[in-house]
Formats: sequence, structure tokens, C-alpha cells
Amino acid sequence: MDIINGGVCAAKGFTANGIHCGIRKNRTKRDIALIKSEVRANAAAVYTTNLVKGAPLTVTKNNISDGKAQAVICNSGNANTCNADGIEKAQEMCRITARELGIDEKDIVVASTGVIGMPFDNTPIRNGMRELVSGLGDNSQLAAEGIMTTDTRLKEIAVKFTVGGKECKIGGIAKGSGMIHPNMATMLVFITTDCAISSEMLRKALSSDIANTFNMVSVDGDTSTNDMVTVLANGMAGNEEITCEGEDFTAFMQALNSVTVYLCKKIAGDGEGATKLIECKVNSAKTDKDAKLIAKSIICSSLVKAAMFGADANWGRVLCAIGYSGADTDVSKVDVSFVSAKGEIAVCKDGAGIPFSEEQAKEILLEEEIDIVVNLNNGEYNTVAWGCDLTYDYVKINGDYRT
Amino acid sequence: MDIINGGVCAAKGFTANGIHCGIRKNRTKRDIALIKSEVRANAAAVYTTNLVKGAPLTVTKNNISDGKAQAVICNSGNANTCNADGIEKAQEMCRITARELGIDEKDIVVASTGVIGMPFDNTPIRNGMRELVSGLGDNSQLAAEGIMTTDTRLKEIAVKFTVGGKECKIGGIAKGSGMIHPNMATMLVFITTDCAISSEMLRKALSSDIANTFNMVSVDGDTSTNDMVTVLANGMAGNEEITCEGEDFTAFMQALNSVTVYLCKKIAGDGEGATKLIECKVNSAKTDKDAKLIAKSIICSSLVKAAMFGADANWGRVLCAIGYSGADTDVSKVDVSFVSAKGEIAVCKDGAGIPFSEEQAKEILLEEEIDIVVNLNNGEYNTVAWGCDLTYDYVKINGDYRT
Repeated sequence: MDIINGGVCAAKGFTANGIHCGIRKNRTKRDIALIKSEVRANAAAVYTTNLVKGAPLTVTKNNISDGKAQAVICNSGNANTCNADGIEKAQEMCRITARELGIDEKDIVVASTGVIGMPFDNTPIRNGMRELVSGLGDNSQLAAEGIMTTDTRLKEIAVKFTVGGKECKIGGIAKGSGMIHPNMATMLVFITTDCAISSEMLRKALSSDIANTFNMVSVDGDTSTNDMVTVLANGMAGNEEITCEGEDFTAFMQALNSVTVYLCKKIAGDGEGATKLIECKVNSAKTDKDAKLIAKSIICSSLVKAAMFGADANWGRVLCAIGYSGADTDVSKVDVSFVSAKGEIAVCKDGAGIPFSEEQAKEILLEEEIDIVVNLNNGEYNTVAWGCDLTYDYVKINGDYRT
Repeated sequence: MDIINGGVCAAKGFTANGIHCGIRKNRTKRDIALIKSEVRANAAAVYTTNLVKGAPLTVTKNNISDGKAQAVICNSGNANTCNADGIEKAQEMCRITARELGIDEKDIVVASTGVIGMPFDNTPIRNGMRELVSGLGDNSQLAAEGIMTTDTRLKEIAVKFTVGGKECKIGGIAKGSGMIHPNMATMLVFITTDCAISSEMLRKALSSDIANTFNMVSVDGDTSTNDMVTVLANGMAGNEEITCEGEDFTAFMQALNSVTVYLCKKIAGDGEGATKLIECKVNSAKTDKDAKLIAKSIICSSLVKAAMFGADANWGRVLCAIGYSGADTDVSKVDVSFVSAKGEIAVCKDGAGIPFSEEQAKEILLEEEIDIVVNLNNGEYNTVAWGCDLTYDYVKINGDYRT
């Protein structure tokens, strides 16, 4: 499997674009993105578990209930959530897009991200649609920019892989970077592939993948109302359609996983205000559930996150987060170490502190990617979760986001 | 019921003291506190639910298993947690205290707060014990200072009330102010009363009270390993001992509740880095559990907390936190308003935004005490939770706490 260029346009038959249409006041910020497949594609999606759901999610869910879609339209700057006329507005957004593309409005995946509870107006989208569609091309980066909110970095990736002797491609774009917490589809991620795979197997691949990828990311513990992950598979690679488990499905799953893990790390590392990507590896848990509870508890702890910001090897906070995670584990068996490009340092053995060089720990923790490695010595299940540090800038960004 | 002076020394027969003995390097900071009852008292306590428990909690639990205690010893600067010899050291701390007081070491409540996983040394306590004991007197404030960690304000209160025609007093001291999250005894609180009440009824009063008080406070979502709430009742007010429910028990419960609610607000308002006390009132929930889940979810949301810091009426984040709280409620019925000394402003009705003056909202939210009032219109259960805003200083305090 090789990483290639092209993002969501890497796979055959996909084009994209992103422009500023006027939803945001800042004219230098693209605020709408479009991804189109040449042919109708099989589609799968997962959605936030928040009871408050953005109107676009409801419309998308309905639109792809037949397992098919041909385009993705997504704006930033307004979440179209908690608006009395939200569903109507999201449907109108589909209609405007479908008309210009000359496709059925039921084949549109619609998404919105931004402020909750602000009246939504389709006028800028209507006015900008011609420009957006006429610019469709190999423009994954423009689309990736169009969906960014407080993200500081564009997030895209593509890989190529082989299924049934045919070269296939899969790529994705994503946006973070606040209101992100492990609970089913906690961000916007759009993935495209030319691999032929049935809607049913696509859904299966996506839902089993996210349990270990997007659901293991947390920036701030807030599960968003709007976020989702979708995959469009248009079959244009020409492989025999994957309709069951087996070698081909495994190859697809691996390719999908390499895209999703990459995007997870990018989302976590670009969390609001973050200066560091924190990867928490929990090993030897009694159950998969325990491993996940503990990994999430650690990456969600404000105290652990603030310690990482300060490059402080305060492992007691890691133990504390294990203790309140709700997982069933013997805390007197826990080992903890910190790892980065500068090396590895063990700080806790059998649940108690061991002597270590604060100087060396500091050097390790000053890096931009830190692994917190926890060995529970309690079973056979391992997991990984991704998060970031808690910084002054997180507070700054969120202290007055709307104005 | 009247508020009176004296804190933990308000009730008859209680004396206290707090000094710097040398656990902390900063010589201007008191680091040990002692509270003593003239006679053996009935005792009750609740402890953290964190699986990682400070050694002092285990020793205290054992010491008061007979429902009796006569003194409280508590240091700050070192949590005596995750140390292989922690229990031994906590027992030694009891022995040192008991010897100087001339009482049984099994009648000591022992507590520690500070950094986790730092070796604990009783030498400064041994050296300072004579001074600590000889200074016992009407010194509740010195004891309150001795247990402070990152607290910026001393927390003490006392009230008088009447039981069976006798005047009784109850008072308490508390420390916050980080690692505080609703889950059974999430801080250090020591309460004393001269009211005569059996151990059994004292336990009952405490455990029913904390469900609506200390368990409804959150500063940062981290449930500490060390914190507890204890009450000593020495009976010196001379009332007939309360041994069952009834008028006297109700009077005691009310007095206890006025002390605990006051301390809850002080702890939340003095949360690490906090500039504001946030009181979240959730009304008309289907069940008590739903009301509590929602209130806690709102006060724990980093995004809500950061918005409060910025005096930003971002009610969408309140809706979002309701949506992921896990409570069973109809989000399309939810009303939200913000209230402070400057007035009240409704911002959301039936789950959707309503027009409001941003200027007036700002004026209301710039106050130091903010109520977020949520009406679920879904049942008969009401609750209150206390929290604080998320600020630059929280990050600063926790970015390098150990050094």
C-alpha cells in the first residue's frame, strides 16, 4: 500500500472543489466544498450519537437509505443545527446542488459545520453554486479547505492498493478540530474510493473501522451534534465487486484503515489550540472494552492534557485517569512510560513511582508527538487512542468563538 | 438557621490549628492541619470512587469502621498515593498525631492532598507535631489554610440551628480546586458538629446529602484519588441523640445541607483558574437521574466553560451537552436562559434559537456568578450542579504543577 497524492480526487471518477460563497464574512476563507463522482456510487455513513443532531444529518441519512449517492456538499461557518427550519434548509441545499450538477437531489450527501443555533440562509450557496460546480476538478485541497472551521492545517490523504489484480485508490479529507470526543463519527470525514464494493460491505467496513479509529479520538470531550464520516465507492477501478468477507475485503479494510488512522492523527494533532499529538497505547487489558475505556479516559483528562502541554511527566494523573475510567483493572499492576522521537522513559511500575531523570523526561515530552504507553499486565487486549494537549489557545479559541 | 463565625471550631468542644511543618518548600504556606474534639465523636465519611485510592483513605476507612473518631490530621503538598509504602506511612502519621494528643491512633481521620506518586516522608510532620498540637484553639482558618493546594481562597462556614430545644452548631472547612468531578467525595471537606446524632444516622445524613451537593460539583472532570468528606459529631450540644428519622433529623439535615451547599459553591467558584461560578439549574426532567446527567454534562463541557469565560451566550453548546449527556429527554422541548445579578435572558425555546440582544447577554454573562437555567418541560425533577469557567489560568496552573 502506497501513499499517493490527490486526496478525495485520487480515486478514478472523483472531482472536487471548494470556494468562498459568502456564508462566512471573511472573504479569504473558503466556506463551501463539493465532491462529485462521475457515476452513482455505493455510499455508507456513520453519524454522531448526540441526541441533538444537525438537520443535514437527518437529510443525508434519508438520502442514502438506498445505499447510493453521487455527490457531497458541505459548508462551514454555520452548523444548521437547532434551527426550526433546519431540515427544509438542508433539503434546499441538496436541491440547489443537484440542479446544477444535473443529478437527483436524493443522491446528495449534505453536511454543515460551524456555529449551532444560527439561522441558516441558502442565498450565498445558491449564488455560488455555478462557480463551485464549474471549478470541479483535481481540487481535493480546495474542498479540504472549504470544510475547515478552527482547523489550522488541511487534512487529506490517499493510498493505492490492489483488489483482485486491479489497482484501486482510496482517499479522504477531514475537518476537526473542537467539539471532538469519541462517540461515533465525531468530525467531518469524506472518503472516496474507486474500489467496487457493495453498499452492505461498505457499511460493514466503515462501522467496524471507526470503532478503532474515529471513536478513539478526543480533543475536548464534547461530542458534536453535526459530524459524520461518509464513504463513496464508485466501482470505477473495475475490480470484481466485493460482496462478502475474504481476501479482497481484507485488502479494502486495510486501505480504509490506513486512511482513517492518518486522518485521526491529523485531527487530534490539530485539535483546537493543540501543540502536541498525544497517542495513548493501552496494552494487556482484560477486555477490549476496558482497554478502550482506559485509553479514552487518559486522553480526555484535562489534567493529563495540561501536563503534556507543560512537558511535565506527571504520571500520577495518568494513574488517576485509569482509576476513574470505569474499567475493571488491577491498578497495582500498571506500568507507565512516555515515548517520543527522543526516546522512552519508564515512570511507573506496578502502580507505584520509580526513580527517573526529570531532565530526560522533559526532553522526551518537549517533542510534538508523545506516546503514553500503559501496560495493564491484566490480559490480552490492546488499543490506541489519539488526543492532544490542553493549551491557552484552546481557551482563547473557545472563549469567544461566535464573534 | 443563622450563619456564624468559627468554621470547624464553632461547635462546642472542637479546636483546630494549621502550621507550616516543612512538607512544602515554600515556608509561607501552611502544610498541615489538625482538628480535635474534646471527646470521642461519632464519625462518618464518604470517599472517592477512583480505583486508585490514596493510602490515607484506606487507613481512615479502617479507623472509623467503629463509627468513632476524635481528631483529623491532614497535610497538603503530597497526596501519599501510588507509593508502595503509602499505608504504612499514613498509619505512622496517625501514630505521631495520636501520641502527641494522648488519644488512640485508631481514632484519627487521616488525609493527604497534593502531588500523586511522590515518596512520602513523615519527618516534617514528626518535627512539627508538638507546635501543631500546642497551638490548638479557635483556629479554624489556620486549619483551612493548611489543607489548601492551588486554592486561592480559604473555605469555611458555620451555622447554628436548634434540635430538641438545644442550640447546635455545625461548621466545615474545604479545599478544592483541581481534579474535581462529581463522583462521590471529590474534594477534602471536614465538618464538625456538637449535635448528638448516632453514627448510623450521621452516615445516612451524609450519604444522602452528598448526592445533591458534592457529587454535583465539577471543576475539570477529573475524579481525584484522595478526596473525602468527613463529619465528626461529638454530642456536646446536649440534645437528645438523634437515632431515627423525624423532626430532629430533618433539622440536622437542613443545617448540614446549608454547610455543604455553601462549600460546594466556594469550591466550584474557586476552581483552578476560575473567574466565575457557574450554577446549572435543570428543571422538569423525567427522572432525577436524567436531571443530574444533564446538569453535570453542561457544567463539565469544556466548550460551555470556555464560552462562559468569554461571556459568550453560545447556547448551542448547552444544547449539545444536553444531547450527549446520556439522559432520556426530548431535545425539541428544551428552553435555556442565562441569569445573573444583571438580569435574565432567554436564548432558546423548544430546542431552537430565539432572537435576543447580544449586548444584554454579554452584560449578564460578565458577572461573577452565572446561572444556566434549563427547562426540559419533560417531567417533575429538578437539580442544581456547580462548576466554573475554563480559563488560561487553568492551563497555566496544570501545565507545570509539580515544579
